[in-house]
Amino acid sequence: MAQQPYSILTVGSLAFDSVQTPTGKADRILGGAANHFSVAASFYAPVSVVGIVGQDFPEAHLEWLAARKVDVSGVRIVPGKSFHWVGSYTYDLNEATTLSTALNVFEHFDPELSEQHRGAQYVFLANIDPVLQLSVLDQVRSPKLVACDTMNFWITGKPEEVRKILKRIDILSINEGEAFLLTGEKNSLSAAEMIQKMGPSVVIIKRGEYGAMLLNGENVFIAPSFPVRQVIDPTGAGDSFAGAFMGFLAEARVDRDMARTDPKAWDMLLRRAVLNGCVMASFIVEDFGFHRLTRLNQHELVARQKSLLRMTSLEPVDL
Amino acid sequence: MAQQPYSILTVGSLAFDSVQTPTGKADRILGGAANHFSVAASFYAPVSVVGIVGQDFPEAHLEWLAARKVDVSGVRIVPGKSFHWVGSYTYDLNEATTLSTALNVFEHFDPELSEQHRGAQYVFLANIDPVLQLSVLDQVRSPKLVACDTMNFWITGKPEEVRKILKRIDILSINEGEAFLLTGEKNSLSAAEMIQKMGPSVVIIKRGEYGAMLLNGENVFIAPSFPVRQVIDPTGAGDSFAGAFMGFLAEARVDRDMARTDPKAWDMLLRRAVLNGCVMASFIVEDFGFHRLTRLNQHELVARQKSLLRMTSLEPVDL
Repeated sequence: MAQQPYSILTVGSLAFDSVQTPTGKADRILGGAANHFSVAASFYAPVSVVGIVGQDFPEAHLEWLAARKVDVSGVRIVPGKSFHWVGSYTYDLNEATTLSTALNVFEHFDPELSEQHRGAQYVFLANIDPVLQLSVLDQVRSPKLVACDTMNFWITGKPEEVRKILKRIDILSINEGEAFLLTGEKNSLSAAEMIQKMGPSVVIIKRGEYGAMLLNGENVFIAPSFPVRQVIDPTGAGDSFAGAFMGFLAEARVDRDMARTDPKAWDMLLRRAVLNGCVMASFIVEDFGFHRLTRLNQHELVARQKSLLRMTSLEPVDL
Repeated sequence: MAQQPYSILTVGSLAFDSVQTPTGKADRILGGAANHFSVAASFYAPVSVVGIVGQDFPEAHLEWLAARKVDVSGVRIVPGKSFHWVGSYTYDLNEATTLSTALNVFEHFDPELSEQHRGAQYVFLANIDPVLQLSVLDQVRSPKLVACDTMNFWITGKPEEVRKILKRIDILSINEGEAFLLTGEKNSLSAAEMIQKMGPSVVIIKRGEYGAMLLNGENVFIAPSFPVRQVIDPTGAGDSFAGAFMGFLAEARVDRDMARTDPKAWDMLLRRAVLNGCVMASFIVEDFGFHRLTRLNQHELVARQKSLLRMTSLEPVDL
């Protein structure tokens, strides 16, 4: 019998998004980094999500997550309104323009982990205040792998705290433009190498429709995104990428010791995890919010993984 | 004994370039699409270049080309000044801004092929007036493979002629932005599919630092560029890509019939050709003009090809 996947804990936002893209708009749809991450990761492994929402947040969504084996016991529902992000995209779908951010109840978010959540095997610190990310790391006991995302707002606003969190994580997943901002470099590889010196031995540079670059020690892996014919809404692509990436590794029961004990296998599993991330992200952009994932089945997921493998291979792939 | 590679004919510009990039500037260095193409292709196969230059063009360069087995008998030297392009790049090194174009003697370019050049086995129509590209195709007898490049200036200025040339070529190699302009699409794959309907069964969408997408019939291949640490000057990257691409196929003696007789091998050879193109382009951007190629040796070329293979592979590559 196959072993159980490792369990994943993510801490971050569950929110409303109002989004305008070249193909249409959607008002107050469900979003938030930890939400997108959880939905994507749930295709691979059990996930616990820790966050805070207002009383306007639909309980039906939490029930839907629970039905997908996402543990929502760490989502606090408090009086007030949920986090609401308003943004838009022009034809360059790789970069969002934030029109407004209403933190609402999120402003007072102070994650306090339950006894069970402190024992999490994997931790993904979604893009939130690095002070909160540090607080989560202080609470978990001995995770086997810790990954983190961040953004320009924190890189410029709380640089010291971002530096502190970088020292305590295994993997940083970050947008290309934000990697440039963090390092002052104008080149992905140089930026990734400089980030490694700040802490994480594994750095993933996300490049929107051009895919992702992985730097693991000295090993570079470059994965294209799966070419979708029409991108409807890129929101959540990076978080669903991270969800599938961590989910794949959790399913394979990989931990950081493997980098030392079996570096070749570690590198190849990281590569496969990146490819899984790219495929998941290619689904989420095909509709607003994470709607596309609500009708995604395992068969489609595997078919697209194979398809992307064929698109990157120099040998005929018969899978 | 190995068979001789096929011979390649290219028609286009040999020119002076004055370039400003974020890392420096170079004044009146040697450039031109057919020039860059020839230098790159000469690493693989014999090339003949047809073009026109003024009396200010250094004969030493033509001699240097000849020493590299580039047949320069088709380069006419006429009274007047050579084509001179002045351009600049900002930190987005994927797109040049043309500051001035002095066609000079190129304005009266009317390629008339010698008897030997009419028998060329491969033809690469570098980015020139599509009227001239059509004239070249009228003169060659029965090439085994014809590829072509074009740009926004001709797409908007001579759309009918561009359509005519597309009907008569096997392969179009084009920048992503220009593919969008040509088709009205905003998506690489859809644009490539629409270009196929205009004629060429093989379409290569060049994406600058993000590599290239190949569409061969229904088969998609996505290759990353080799990540160089510092791009000094992107000028000529697309033409040296095309040079290595065509050179690789010429060395392998591939012709268009293979698409029918051995479609799998055809597809895999096209993929390898694209990877060779990406590697060659990664060298040329490391210095101004094609300077980097003047000190490039076969050992370095092969080493970087292997390195790029490793960066795209999901299996350990021991080459």
